[in-house]
Amino acid sequence: MARAGGPVPGMSAGDYASRIVRVRAAMARRGIDVLLASVGHDLPYLTGYHAMPLERLTMLVVPLDGPVTMVVPRLEVPRVVPQPGVFEVLPWGETEDPVALVAERAAGARTVAVGDQMWARFLVELLPSMPGARFVRAVDVMGELRMAKDQREIDLLRAAGAAADRVAADLQAGRIPLVGRTEAEVSADLSARLVSEGHDVVNFAIVAAGENAASPHHHPGSRTIRHGEIVLCDFGGTMGGYCSDITRCVHLGEPSPEVAEAYRVLHEAQRAGVEAAVVGASCQDVDRASRAVIEAAGYGEYFVHRTGHGIGMEAHEEPYMVEGNDRRIEAGFAFSVEPGIYVPGRFGMRLEDIVVATGTGPLPMNAADHALVVVEA
Amino acid sequence: MARAGGPVPGMSAGDYASRIVRVRAAMARRGIDVLLASVGHDLPYLTGYHAMPLERLTMLVVPLDGPVTMVVPRLEVPRVVPQPGVFEVLPWGETEDPVALVAERAAGARTVAVGDQMWARFLVELLPSMPGARFVRAVDVMGELRMAKDQREIDLLRAAGAAADRVAADLQAGRIPLVGRTEAEVSADLSARLVSEGHDVVNFAIVAAGENAASPHHHPGSRTIRHGEIVLCDFGGTMGGYCSDITRCVHLGEPSPEVAEAYRVLHEAQRAGVEAAVVGASCQDVDRASRAVIEAAGYGEYFVHRTGHGIGMEAHEEPYMVEGNDRRIEAGFAFSVEPGIYVPGRFGMRLEDIVVATGTGPLPMNAADHALVVVEA
Repeated sequence: MARAGGPVPGMSAGDYASRIVRVRAAMARRGIDVLLASVGHDLPYLTGYHAMPLERLTMLVVPLDGPVTMVVPRLEVPRVVPQPGVFEVLPWGETEDPVALVAERAAGARTVAVGDQMWARFLVELLPSMPGARFVRAVDVMGELRMAKDQREIDLLRAAGAAADRVAADLQAGRIPLVGRTEAEVSADLSARLVSEGHDVVNFAIVAAGENAASPHHHPGSRTIRHGEIVLCDFGGTMGGYCSDITRCVHLGEPSPEVAEAYRVLHEAQRAGVEAAVVGASCQDVDRASRAVIEAAGYGEYFVHRTGHGIGMEAHEEPYMVEGNDRRIEAGFAFSVEPGIYVPGRFGMRLEDIVVATGTGPLPMNAADHALVVVEA
Repeated sequence: MARAGGPVPGMSAGDYASRIVRVRAAMARRGIDVLLASVGHDLPYLTGYHAMPLERLTMLVVPLDGPVTMVVPRLEVPRVVPQPGVFEVLPWGETEDPVALVAERAAGARTVAVGDQMWARFLVELLPSMPGARFVRAVDVMGELRMAKDQREIDLLRAAGAAADRVAADLQAGRIPLVGRTEAEVSADLSARLVSEGHDVVNFAIVAAGENAASPHHHPGSRTIRHGEIVLCDFGGTMGGYCSDITRCVHLGEPSPEVAEAYRVLHEAQRAGVEAAVVGASCQDVDRASRAVIEAAGYGEYFVHRTGHGIGMEAHEEPYMVEGNDRRIEAGFAFSVEPGIYVPGRFGMRLEDIVVATGTGPLPMNAADHALVVVEA
């Protein structure tokens, strides 16, 4: 299935083995006896292998010590790249019960950490086999490893960001025709350009014109784009195993004073969010910094979402830049800073970069023009 | 996000309301107090709305009686098409806890049915709020509704199947160049053709050449396709809310006697599986019928997977054509019949149609040539 992320270049069995060592240390600190990783990105982070999101269970069983086992449908075994010393493969046949195999390997565990995106059906099937166990989110331990990116990961995020920037530059230079095309057509165009710029997978390509831009997750549809309106484009994909995510708005012809003024506020809010993204600040400080600018200008009620989300192997992952998240930002944390202003029925706008916190300050992964660029076609 | 399935044409609020009535009847029969539907296809089946697979929870809470509530992130609310009399929308803001809202609406339930593909994190978060509850799979009740397709659904499956057939015909007519291209390039070509034939989303496009075809879920890669080998293509997508799925193999130049003989057996096995797909037979009878042919010919060890899977709004859904599944086939059941022969390191082959069981016998949704067509380019 082409949707699964590709392999991360340059990772060796030794790299994965050292991640297993680190996750076990985190498990021990938190009193977790076994960790279960299935669909989602904890599994490839620990092994290089992506499970297909299918009814056939793939699950990595990581006990505090002893062998790590990957329970895999027999017909997927040819796709598993062995990592010597990291995990053993336990294939299951079509008439076997894979959940029983997992329960056997997790027997006796009192606290079990499960991956966020594992299908609930497998947890439902596991519950009766582990009546005394307490279940917690694996993100509690995996987040410790995955949030702080190392230099290789930052380089991959930068490469993905630069590829997305080139698509944004096409948009801002008027090389992507807009007027008279549908949102869906422009979305397909952005997607194709993400791929031709090097992405392995397109994760999303939101295109929202005029009043549609007031819906932050608008699904690009048959609405034809017209002269005189704003076009919000939020797109990203996966490249070398790591994600890009950028939002730029362009305006077809000169914007009205109202739109121009709102964008001026948005731009300032985004810059304030980036400047607040320093090591030692809290995640909610980033949200507060962007929000304060928007609220002071009187648009507070129109900024209806958090300011950002972590990014790495997943397009959205920990940490989230949201009120109530007092987690301290560490060097290597990578996340979006993307305030928005959405006036229902009229227009919307969002401005988004990916930023990595470093010891010497916030390091943006995107450099495409931050202005509301006017295009004519 | 363009990946979510599109709306199903022609469905009205009344249609959804009648499905809610039917699911409640099934819940009552099975002693289920509340049903929770999130990511996956139970939610759109009941409401027309697809939840994005994101960390922000969307969940439909269906109690045995009283209001049905859709808990939705506030910023997704503009995407929800209201269905009067079917559900109420309960938006949650970025700093609220949506799981608490679900727990409140499910309070007192002793048996809770959860959708298969709901993210495990939400079940993990729900467990402590419902300490006495028993959790079961929602498929136990939803399957009763979803497995037996009505005429509108069968028409949509037929339209999707016909579109996939046109792509298969392109392949068999040699209109898709193979020799000298990579599997990944041919996969992209098949995907583009699925879209141009009317699919809204491509779900997969497996292309496996020569010895790679011995891995049933091979990920199309940089392997260049050569003259003299078999090329297995398994592709499908979603069109009008319903899925296609077809596998055809072509051979570049005349096959060896060994490959030709194996294919003759495969073809006979596939036909036997289709012929066994009659109302009143069991699901495992279909598997047994195909498998018996392959085993009698001495290839039993090379047929490493079940014979088929249900299909509808999902590419893989209940029921599964597998040994041990003694469920009786009813009129309207739709599923694949796809035996395969995989000789490790040498070659593989699979032949797949979608079939709907009807009162007058099995009705294939695919009609593309079943032979191992020889192509030259």
